[in-house]
Amino acid sequence: MIAVLKPGTTDQQRDSLCEWFKGMGLQVHVSQGEFHTIIGLLGDTSKVDINLLESLSIIESVKRITEPFKNANRKFHTDDSVIDVGGFKFGGGHFQVIAGPCSVESEEQIVGVAKRVKAAGANFLRGGAFKPRTSPYDFQGLHADGLKLLSLAKQQTGQPIVTEIMNINDLPLFEDADVIQVGARNMQNFDLLRELGRTDKVILIKRGLANTLKELLMSAEYVMAGGNERIILCERGIRTFETYTRNTLDLSAIPMLRELTHLPVVADPSHGTGKARLVEPMALAAAAAGADGLMIEVHPEPERALSDGAQSLTPDQFDRLMAKVHKIREAIQA
Amino acid sequence: MIAVLKPGTTDQQRDSLCEWFKGMGLQVHVSQGEFHTIIGLLGDTSKVDINLLESLSIIESVKRITEPFKNANRKFHTDDSVIDVGGFKFGGGHFQVIAGPCSVESEEQIVGVAKRVKAAGANFLRGGAFKPRTSPYDFQGLHADGLKLLSLAKQQTGQPIVTEIMNINDLPLFEDADVIQVGARNMQNFDLLRELGRTDKVILIKRGLANTLKELLMSAEYVMAGGNERIILCERGIRTFETYTRNTLDLSAIPMLRELTHLPVVADPSHGTGKARLVEPMALAAAAAGADGLMIEVHPEPERALSDGAQSLTPDQFDRLMAKVHKIREAIQA
Amino acid sequence: MIAVLKPGTTDQQRDSLCEWFKGMGLQVHVSQGEFHTIIGLLGDTSKVDINLLESLSIIESVKRITEPFKNANRKFHTDDSVIDVGGFKFGGGHFQVIAGPCSVESEEQIVGVAKRVKAAGANFLRGGAFKPRTSPYDFQGLHADGLKLLSLAKQQTGQPIVTEIMNINDLPLFEDADVIQVGARNMQNFDLLRELGRTDKVILIKRGLANTLKELLMSAEYVMAGGNERIILCERGIRTFETYTRNTLDLSAIPMLRELTHLPVVADPSHGTGKARLVEPMALAAAAAGADGLMIEVHPEPERALSDGAQSLTPDQFDRLMAKVHKIREAIQA
Amino acid sequence: MIAVLKPGTTDQQRDSLCEWFKGMGLQVHVSQGEFHTIIGLLGDTSKVDINLLESLSIIESVKRITEPFKNANRKFHTDDSVIDVGGFKFGGGHFQVIAGPCSVESEEQIVGVAKRVKAAGANFLRGGAFKPRTSPYDFQGLHADGLKLLSLAKQQTGQPIVTEIMNINDLPLFEDADVIQVGARNMQNFDLLRELGRTDKVILIKRGLANTLKELLMSAEYVMAGGNERIILCERGIRTFETYTRNTLDLSAIPMLRELTHLPVVADPSHGTGKARLVEPMALAAAAAGADGLMIEVHPEPERALSDGAQSLTPDQFDRLMAKVHKIREAIQA
Repeated sequence: MIAVLKPGTTDQQRDSLCEWFKGMGLQVHVSQGEFHTIIGLLGDTSKVDINLLESLSIIESVKRITEPFKNANRKFHTDDSVIDVGGFKFGGGHFQVIAGPCSVESEEQIVGVAKRVKAAGANFLRGGAFKPRTSPYDFQGLHADGLKLLSLAKQQTGQPIVTEIMNINDLPLFEDADVIQVGARNMQNFDLLRELGRTDKVILIKRGLANTLKELLMSAEYVMAGGNERIILCERGIRTFETYTRNTLDLSAIPMLRELTHLPVVADPSHGTGKARLVEPMALAAAAAGADGLMIEVHPEPERALSDGAQSLTPDQFDRLMAKVHKIREAIQA
Repeated sequence: MIAVLKPGTTDQQRDSLCEWFKGMGLQVHVSQGEFHTIIGLLGDTSKVDINLLESLSIIESVKRITEPFKNANRKFHTDDSVIDVGGFKFGGGHFQVIAGPCSVESEEQIVGVAKRVKAAGANFLRGGAFKPRTSPYDFQGLHADGLKLLSLAKQQTGQPIVTEIMNINDLPLFEDADVIQVGARNMQNFDLLRELGRTDKVILIKRGLANTLKELLMSAEYVMAGGNERIILCERGIRTFETYTRNTLDLSAIPMLRELTHLPVVADPSHGTGKARLVEPMALAAAAAGADGLMIEVHPEPERALSDGAQSLTPDQFDRLMAKVHKIREAIQA
Repeated sequence: MIAVLKPGTTDQQRDSLCEWFKGMGLQVHVSQGEFHTIIGLLGDTSKVDINLLESLSIIESVKRITEPFKNANRKFHTDDSVIDVGGFKFGGGHFQVIAGPCSVESEEQIVGVAKRVKAAGANFLRGGAFKPRTSPYDFQGLHADGLKLLSLAKQQTGQPIVTEIMNINDLPLFEDADVIQVGARNMQNFDLLRELGRTDKVILIKRGLANTLKELLMSAEYVMAGGNERIILCERGIRTFETYTRNTLDLSAIPMLRELTHLPVVADPSHGTGKARLVEPMALAAAAAGADGLMIEVHPEPERALSDGAQSLTPDQFDRLMAKVHKIREAIQA
Repeated sequence: MIAVLKPGTTDQQRDSLCEWFKGMGLQVHVSQGEFHTIIGLLGDTSKVDINLLESLSIIESVKRITEPFKNANRKFHTDDSVIDVGGFKFGGGHFQVIAGPCSVESEEQIVGVAKRVKAAGANFLRGGAFKPRTSPYDFQGLHADGLKLLSLAKQQTGQPIVTEIMNINDLPLFEDADVIQVGARNMQNFDLLRELGRTDKVILIKRGLANTLKELLMSAEYVMAGGNERIILCERGIRTFETYTRNTLDLSAIPMLRELTHLPVVADPSHGTGKARLVEPMALAAAAAGADGLMIEVHPEPERALSDGAQSLTPDQFDRLMAKVHKIREAIQA
């Protein structure tokens, strides 16, 4: 950590600050310049509150050198984390596809889709039972009934379930879920993250609409700080000024996160674009960029979907997509 | 609501769609052009799911004419809502200042600040007991103890309390709180909003970091849909590309929201700028723009604050600010 | 075009507005609702100034149905435009790689790089002679000398040259350039675009840092309105809140532009990421998303580059990249 | 300037880098930590190309301590710059209002508005003769004729003229203009800025739609580096996700720029909001925030304006605005 002192700081102020740092067990190096004094802090600075430091009147700026995320940081955990869910693995070269409808609507719908996507090679089934909707008047999901329908489908296909939680009080309903998703709007619902850190579920965290990769990793850190290190990160599109697409899928997040963290990263081109026609090219692009998996919305009749139909593929479109994804995976591994 | 059909839509598809609309009790007007067909829908369109409509293959685009927020909409409630909290009023020409530290730290701190800001004219006391922090390793607030200290201060000054909730399970601890704040990162925590709609507390909703005014009003709508119409909106700065300031306080939100809604709007220049030196000019600007109130962080020793010290005023600075705010209020009312 | 009238508009005001539209040769359809009146305008609305219309006091909102770009619009030109530059083609299934250093520095540098990238399969040579730099104190390019060095390289490799113009007065120096690039910061330098519309050069237009796809297409329209229809669009990364990457390469722009326009689209992962390590995965992703070409920075000694060395590949890295791009192209064409 | 070396950098690499810095006349301080080495550079680092430095393989990150703008920096020029234009002053406590139509349309229009705004207290007349329009099919201004009409108005009212340049080749036409405006879309047209640095006109630079304050100051630096130090900065709204307002007027830019630079700062609430109804509250807010002036669009018949009518005030509205601005100025100076 580096602190730059303001011009005009007295020697006494500087020395007093340095003593304070030394009291925290840090090594202190001072570089005195014509206009500014630079203080280099070495040691375990992860517990130093950077906002507090910046608030001191003699400080011009503070810069962390070591990232504030410890558990998620690749520097301290150089090998890829491999997340094993019922024998299916994410990360470390393993690639998985999670597919299914945005919302669970009926037994016929969810079981039908599950069988189709399983046959096409998707080992995981997704489906929302609790839906975060901008309007209180829109369909909010089938809740407990939706989770039961997911279990029914799982019994038939053997696919582990990926489904979203919105309220920690609903956790008992998620017993049969394998991967619990934290949605983009809850990425910084720190209480929810903390509670999920105490469970033994795999947690899939979606990047918030206007959040940085560092913030995404800090949210992973909240879960990991509670002892749960089985986390999958998900790039699902960020908000930009573009309106032709619903969001802007930031695929550079994939190789960038690979550098920063050992956790697996999947991409969701369905929410990332909001348009069914763009899902295939962006799914292929995500695979080419090195994603550890994909999350794709599939619905038997997208035009009748109760939410997000505009971005869902039909099962036939999904079949074709999987064939192409397979070829891209071969191309980058060759 | 207006729906534009894609070129190539058949007459049969168009008629079938129109029948569907009529079945929903809507009036349907069709304008047939050379390239496009435009369908105008009149009646109560607030329950139509715009995403569902957009997902139909024959639809090029859909546009709402009536805003999707009903209860918060000024069109259906032309007079300003006046929110009365213990005799102190927001809105309809009434102006209130909420002041206090970012975090409650000790009895001495909170009672001392409360007395000072009360003396300077702040009728409301703020202080955080539950703090949303980006890092799990940063100070998270005193929780129940913090709320008790706020009550102690209230007993001495008579100031209603404004404090943030992060988890609906903590609600029983907020019995003595008068205004419950929903923080920027929880603005779209829809479950929390829904639950607060069932309480009889005044709810202060802060605009999210990358949220639009329409989204802010939809979040108010979540609370109002539950029957609680006592809501105060708060502009606290949005995320932009600027880094000299912590956020960008969007003061145009104040007059714009006044047009769109009857709910009172306050501004928080402390979080909005993140720099104590900018709080005074931006507080004056907010008052000049017509805000119904201000929310200001004050700390006896900002440099020792456990969170957000960088943006806190000293009590002396707050005294000077209040004198100037008073003059601006006189100037715009003259 | 659809215009929505405000509640309270009188019949006389409405009729007067309709007469005005009819005077412009437009067909007018009126739908009268309880709260709003909707006016549908059919015919050639491309010359209607939407800002003027919105400024009328009786208008609540206006929405274009037909996009304001005519020449660039795929609706009126359904086949892909194929841009042929010296026998090398972009678009319509043709794929080209443009490679070379950010700045031309010396004969040895530019000729050396040209030969290497040519051998690896890049048919086009890029190199900047005029460099837009944020600071007036940074290296600004070799100007006329740089263009002469590019010509020297072209004589040896036969590669058409792609190079940036910043000032229309420099046009005479660009006689030997084959593709003139308009940089991101000049994307809305409308005078420059208009002048380039009068030349017979191929124009490569880079998307601005905070510009939408519609704005990019309107900039293409400026050139096309002057009669020059040989345009290549380039996605080079947009500004977002992310700071680990220099920009955010918006690959969804590739399939989205393919829908909107017949013009070819290339991607620049070097500027798009700002980091050499991310160039390969993002180049592969762009190819998988269906780009018509790539623009890649290659420098013999990136660490000695006078500008943008951080994002340049070495010739050896470029060789490996080209082999992988070839495989991805095969995978998506299979 | 501070450079942080990557873990694994050898002593030889470090020493070689330090020698290179010393060769540039810089003082070098090395702090060796467990994971990282920090190099502090003192002396004149303004000529160091930060991109070049970041490109070195052993560098983890680089941070400037001294801002890269020298001439515009308040640190090296502590007193406010006072810009005197024909006896009317901006800065150092002086406040000016620039008013007039978006576009010059006719003699009657411009002379009529000039007289009205002069009478209301606006010492400066604005009016566009060259208009940057997103569409090539929209009205582009009267060009030379527009400038002649501005001169006519100036002869009658004595008001100095503020008008926008888009192309340096038009400079001879601007002989009678007193303040030349660089529009938001040309803020980083570096060639234009450089040329304006060689003129003796006052230059008003508008902040670009997605540009930071540092970038705005670097653009000022381009003009100042050429010897022209008479610059006025203008906050005119930035692009955000909000769509109810055309732009988001960032009023915190006013006190923030006051800290960073000695140059005067004016606000343009007309472009900043795009809505006439929001101009008054935002103009008052800008004055309260400490602006050195305002730029306001006034048109005799906003509904007939050829551009930007939606945001223009009528002369009567402007009279009322000026009375209120006067009261706010008194309030903050009291």
